[in-house]
Amino acid sequence: MHLFYTPDITGDTYQLNEEESRHCSKVLRLVEGDRVQLIDGRGGFYTAEITDAHPKRTVLKITEHQQEYSKRNHYLHIAVAPTKNIDRFEWFLEKSTEIGIDEITPLICERSERKDVKIERLNKIITSAVKQSLKAYHPKLNEACSFKNFLDKPAKEKFIAHCMEGDKSTLSDKIKKHGEYTILIGPEGDFSPSEAEQALLKEYIPVSLGSSRLRTETAALQACFEINFLNR
Amino acid sequence: MHLFYTPDITGDTYQLNEEESRHCSKVLRLVEGDRVQLIDGRGGFYTAEITDAHPKRTVLKITEHQQEYSKRNHYLHIAVAPTKNIDRFEWFLEKSTEIGIDEITPLICERSERKDVKIERLNKIITSAVKQSLKAYHPKLNEACSFKNFLDKPAKEKFIAHCMEGDKSTLSDKIKKHGEYTILIGPEGDFSPSEAEQALLKEYIPVSLGSSRLRTETAALQACFEINFLNR
Repeated sequence: MHLFYTPDITGDTYQLNEEESRHCSKVLRLVEGDRVQLIDGRGGFYTAEITDAHPKRTVLKITEHQQEYSKRNHYLHIAVAPTKNIDRFEWFLEKSTEIGIDEITPLICERSERKDVKIERLNKIITSAVKQSLKAYHPKLNEACSFKNFLDKPAKEKFIAHCMEGDKSTLSDKIKKHGEYTILIGPEGDFSPSEAEQALLKEYIPVSLGSSRLRTETAALQACFEINFLNR
Repeated sequence: MHLFYTPDITGDTYQLNEEESRHCSKVLRLVEGDRVQLIDGRGGFYTAEITDAHPKRTVLKITEHQQEYSKRNHYLHIAVAPTKNIDRFEWFLEKSTEIGIDEITPLICERSERKDVKIERLNKIITSAVKQSLKAYHPKLNEACSFKNFLDKPAKEKFIAHCMEGDKSTLSDKIKKHGEYTILIGPEGDFSPSEAEQALLKEYIPVSLGSSRLRTETAALQACFEINFLNR
C-alpha cells in the first residue's frame, strides 16, 4: 500500500498537499476508494481511504489508527561532525533512520572541515528513509551546534567516541538498558585533545567502537547499531 | 605515513608500478629516504624506505614486516543480491570492509533486478576501503553466482535473512564464537518463497536482523555488524 508522511494530521480526514495530491492521482493513479497508509512522525500509523481523488486537493478518510506504532524502547541521540563530503553524512542519516535513531545533531568541532549543513535538505533524506522503512516516528534533526555549546546541554547517559589513546570502555559495559543515550562522534581528523578533555569534565564517558579504523559516518552508524542491538 | 597496496610483494625490496610510482613522486612528492607503509592483502603489513624515487619505477626497501597483522578471529562470507542502484552495493562493500568482512559473493536471485556486476570496479572500491581503514587483509570478492549454484557450495555455519513470516532465530542465538559464517541477503523484492525453501533444505537457518524494515544493503551491513560485534 502507498505511504504518505502527514505530520500535520488531526481528526479523521486529511487533505494531501498539492504536490502529494498530484503524485497520488497522476503518478500513482489512485482513485476514490483506494486505500493508503499515513504516518505522522509522532508514532501515529493510519490507514485511510481516498474519498476525493482531486489532483490538487486529494481528500482521505482515516479508517484505522494506531498510536505509538513500533515505539522504540530507548532514546538515542547522536551528535556527529558533518563530513567534508556531505554524501557520507546524508548516508548516515538514511541508514541510522532505517536502523533506529531518535535525534541527530550536526556537531561543529575544532577540526571540522564542514561548518554548516542544509537542514531542510537533510530532513528530506530522513523523511524518505522514514517512509521507506515504515517508521511512525520521525527522527529529530537539530540545527548544527558547536562542540562547546553542545556540552552545556543536559543529557543522561553520555559517551564520546574519540580515537585517542587512553582508558576506554565499551557501550556494552556502560549502558543501562532502555536508557537515554547521547553519543559524540568526531570529524575526519578526530576530536582535538582539548575537546576530549572538556567532554571528560562534562562527564562524557570515552568509549571504543571496536578495533577497526572507521570513517566518521561509519563510526556513527556503528554506535547506532550497538545501541539498538544492546536494547533488543 | 602513506600507504600502498602491494599484493605481489615478495622479498625485502619492492618496485611500485608506473601509476603508483608517479603518484609517489609527483603527487606525494616523496624522495629517497622517506618511509611508507605497505599492505599485501594477505595479512602482511610492512614499513619500507624509498631507495630510488624514480617517477616510473620507484624502489622501496622493506625495513619492518609483520605477518597476520590484526588477524580476524572469525570468517564472514556474505552473499548478497546486488542492488538495482549499484551505488548502494558499492557502499556496502566499502562499509563492510571497514567494519570487517572476509568474503563477498554477489548473489543473483529470482527477483534480482540486477543480474551482473563489474567485479574489477567493485574490487577497486574494496581496495581503497582496505587502505583507508588500514586492513592488512583484502576481502575476497567472488564473481556473481546464481542462488541455486551458491546453495551447492560447501559452507559451515549457514544463515539466510529473508523477510517472510515464520520461525526465525537471531544470529546471537545461533552462532558459535570464532566460527565460519555464510549469510544470504536477498534482493529488493526479498527472496522468493521457493528460494527460502531451497535454502532450508540445504540447512540454511532463517534469521531475523531485528524489527526494522531494512534495505538490502543495510540488512547486509547489519549482519556484518552483528557477526563482528558477537565475536569481539
